Amino acid sequence: MSRRKQHNPPRNRTHDGGDSRPPQGTRGRPGGKPHKAGGQAGGDAYLYGFHAVLAALSNPERDPERLIMTRNAEAELARQGLRPNIQPEIMDGEALSALLPAGAVHQGIALKTSPLPDLDVFDACEGASRIVVLDQVTDPHNFGAILRSAAVFGAEALVTTERNSPVLGGALAKAASGGLEKVKIARIANLIRAIEELKELGFEVIGLDGEGEMSLPEMNLSPKVALVLGAEGAGLRRLTREHCDLLARLPAAGDMKSLNVSNAAAVALYELFRRA
Amino acid sequence: MSRRKQHNPPRNRTHDGGDSRPPQGTRGRPGGKPHKAGGQAGGDAYLYGFHAVLAALSNPERDPERLIMTRNAEAELARQGLRPNIQPEIMDGEALSALLPAGAVHQGIALKTSPLPDLDVFDACEGASRIVVLDQVTDPHNFGAILRSAAVFGAEALVTTERNSPVLGGALAKAASGGLEKVKIARIANLIRAIEELKELGFEVIGLDGEGEMSLPEMNLSPKVALVLGAEGAGLRRLTREHCDLLARLPAAGDMKSLNVSNAAAVALYELFRRA
Repeated sequence: MSRRKQHNPPRNRTHDGGDSRPPQGTRGRPGGKPHKAGGQAGGDAYLYGFHAVLAALSNPERDPERLIMTRNAEAELARQGLRPNIQPEIMDGEALSALLPAGAVHQGIALKTSPLPDLDVFDACEGASRIVVLDQVTDPHNFGAILRSAAVFGAEALVTTERNSPVLGGALAKAASGGLEKVKIARIANLIRAIEELKELGFEVIGLDGEGEMSLPEMNLSPKVALVLGAEGAGLRRLTREHCDLLARLPAAGDMKSLNVSNAAAVALYELFRRA
Repeated sequence: MSRRKQHNPPRNRTHDGGDSRPPQGTRGRPGGKPHKAGGQAGGDAYLYGFHAVLAALSNPERDPERLIMTRNAEAELARQGLRPNIQPEIMDGEALSALLPAGAVHQGIALKTSPLPDLDVFDACEGASRIVVLDQVTDPHNFGAILRSAAVFGAEALVTTERNSPVLGGALAKAASGGLEKVKIARIANLIRAIEELKELGFEVIGLDGEGEMSLPEMNLSPKVALVLGAEGAGLRRLTREHCDLLARLPAAGDMKSLNVSNAAAVALYELFRRA
């Protein structure tokens, strides 16, 4: 029996299962829906910063278009024995800053590249054992930091909504420090359907919630866990909570119980990693 | 034998030891050094946001000067059964925004208050069992998030440098979500001297470092731990590293090993709390 849910409308993808990520552009969407820009737009067209750019350059899913470096950044790359696979344009720091959003800490390096491939829940999560689901986490720094923690603690994929989730662009990539290229990301229209698909894939879906009935460290965990986190302040939406297999809280020493969402994610992912 | 180090020049404080925090202003500094503004200045004169303001109002160390609320915020406070101990001025949201730094998410509530008392290492850390030391963490959001995690995981104090550390103002307090009022903060001139003072107080001083010789979860921990974290990117400075009792790393699943500094703090503080 296939564990793949038939979506409505049925898709004609060329998905080949497992952990493989087919080259970008091979998976057409019904109706010839063009490949999304991966949320990159306007001032977010460039990735910047060493970790973000080098990780993107080494991601076979990316098709780099334009690499810009200062002389200093070029020297730093040479010092590290790294040679980019695309000819860089040399520019001074001010000119580079002018291409990027105000205040972007670019470290002298920026990359214009194709967006990440467009994955659905099955593409991103089949074969994974720990994944993160974000319910309306809109801040690119928090989102990026969560990707970074996911990469560090071995969470293979992240599921988020197309709406009310940040552009997968420069600021987020900088905060992710390379994690944007390591963690598969599914941007889906309907989070509840995604949660049900994760259950079909065998994931135990645990919502992190201050009112959770169990403390995460005290729980018996399934070998496949999907950790659901809500927005800063608002937390998980009611429907999201209701579709989780269970709600878990993190322990706390005293009255203050709520962490910043990226810190909650880091601690929960660490706890899952520690016990894996 | 006194464990109190004699500073140079000797201080004539009225410190009475233990966990007590004498009322603000009772501890003169040598030479009549005026009470520092706690780093509050300019557009950071106000705290804002519900958690930050309510925590400051309930902190006996604070002397509130001006509380401003929108009608909505007033209603929300009433709904929660809370009554501030200072008469609020009612203002519309736009007028309130105009008093605050651009983009401040004030939630309709802001407070002008006296700064926190000026603590040294002994004031802040005597009697504590877990503390955090920050070596040049300059971003107020990271710093605030670390205070929040410290409060959640029961770290009683935080030591940081007067220079190269953010203003203890609105943005930081918002990120700390009340943690600024729960965790004692010592802002000191010389971090190395502070580390030596912590050792005198019986703390094991553990520097968190990707190159650490031991993995934090595998270490035998002293009952009193001072956790030292360095700046995003640069990490601990050489002299800081050399003065730590030992360097520890956090475990990682793969190639990516480095977390955002506030996430590293959260995970390390969780690990200390979990094993306490």
